[in-house]
Amino acid sequence: MILNKIESGVKEAKITLVGAGPGDPELISLKGVKAIASADVVLYDAQVNEALLNHAPEKAIKIFVGSKSDDESFSQDAVNKLMIDYALNYGHVVRLKSGDPFVFARGFEEVDYAESYSIQTEIIPGISSALGVPGLHKIPMTYNTLSESFWVLSGTNAAGELSPDLMVAAKSKATVVILMGIEKIREITAIFQAEGKNKLPVAVIENGSSVNEHIKIGVVDTIAELIEDNKISSPALLVFGDVVSLHPSFARIKDFYELMSLQ
Amino acid sequence: MILNKIESGVKEAKITLVGAGPGDPELISLKGVKAIASADVVLYDAQVNEALLNHAPEKAIKIFVGSKSDDESFSQDAVNKLMIDYALNYGHVVRLKSGDPFVFARGFEEVDYAESYSIQTEIIPGISSALGVPGLHKIPMTYNTLSESFWVLSGTNAAGELSPDLMVAAKSKATVVILMGIEKIREITAIFQAEGKNKLPVAVIENGSSVNEHIKIGVVDTIAELIEDNKISSPALLVFGDVVSLHPSFARIKDFYELMSLQ
Repeated sequence: MILNKIESGVKEAKITLVGAGPGDPELISLKGVKAIASADVVLYDAQVNEALLNHAPEKAIKIFVGSKSDDESFSQDAVNKLMIDYALNYGHVVRLKSGDPFVFARGFEEVDYAESYSIQTEIIPGISSALGVPGLHKIPMTYNTLSESFWVLSGTNAAGELSPDLMVAAKSKATVVILMGIEKIREITAIFQAEGKNKLPVAVIENGSSVNEHIKIGVVDTIAELIEDNKISSPALLVFGDVVSLHPSFARIKDFYELMSLQ
Repeated sequence: MILNKIESGVKEAKITLVGAGPGDPELISLKGVKAIASADVVLYDAQVNEALLNHAPEKAIKIFVGSKSDDESFSQDAVNKLMIDYALNYGHVVRLKSGDPFVFARGFEEVDYAESYSIQTEIIPGISSALGVPGLHKIPMTYNTLSESFWVLSGTNAAGELSPDLMVAAKSKATVVILMGIEKIREITAIFQAEGKNKLPVAVIENGSSVNEHIKIGVVDTIAELIEDNKISSPALLVFGDVVSLHPSFARIKDFYELMSLQ
């Protein structure tokens, strides 16, 4: 009897991918909050702020699925299967992902997998840390003649390597934002150095928009050491470009280099 | 007496730049809504959804400042001065901008101007239409081997021209997103054609995330005609890249080209 009752109460299967934003739990969208509030199940990533789970109904099932690098047991394949299993058995699954679900987050793979089971899907975009986090520090993506465009890359492509696109990006005049790149910082700076951009301003921002956020400003030649000396670790993003010179901390570095060049 | 009362009631001057997101009024952040709710004055742009003004206190002053292209009387300079004037006389000014304030939106110029008057500023990022709108249509920025990065440009740089960066972007393997570019669509497609990318998939999305949204999918050689035939106008964004082939509408175009090549 109870089993029957539960079964007849199962809502239509639906999977909503929600972008949680960069870390501050108030940087999720109103639409994202509404989706969580109507969830039967929430599957959330390692970088999602757990305060967001408070928007979910008390009886909703909340499952931490970690991130690929943390725990082999939650591979993309395992997450895909969990999503389908819960949607078919419980109804509305909210797949809560940090940043935006379609910016280096395998959102398409998840939607595609769900649709192969004819499960209805919806996307609710989020604030990508790539743009939102530098903005919080008043570093614009573009500014007058300093930069007219921005290029966003990841430290790790499908093959687990730096994207060959970075070679072209380092030659370009675009602001270059690199997510998940600090473990390869020496490789990355070598690419900019090969282009003679040793003094190009660089910002590194760890835990962007969170309470334990750190920002350091340097140039191509100094940023790797700054990251090591300050023990900056993932998650962190890098911004390479003249727009970083607009950050107030950059003035001190500039003065230092100008003094050095007089010697 | 009344005058004195008003004067003593003026709160500390503060200017908060809030990203309203791409158009859907539920795609603003919780933090953005809270800022509007505490505003004494809201200055909002042409592309901001007016439903967002309902979050403001009834007594708050709401001023439409249009956009540069609509009305010469609200130049950037005029907006800057209004912002300062209202902050000094009324307290908390929310400067509500479509998308993200730091993505081709002169947010930095406004913050810089406010700080030159020693007025406290805060940035609340928004969902940039550049990433969020393609995502709503399940077009990812990157996907496996199709694209490992994305490059965002505007149809108009500080000189009112197409950015020279577009020449490099058209050569690159990045997904290329162009905001405010449809008026220059013939110039833009010529750049991709010069690179032999005649059959590169392209999406154009008008009024992204709004009720009157339209999306058309084509390739470099057909997109200008599609825009003209369907009378697509600003605001609209363009996505150039193989990731657009993941959109279900692309299958039909692909079949058509395959048939053509058999003849």
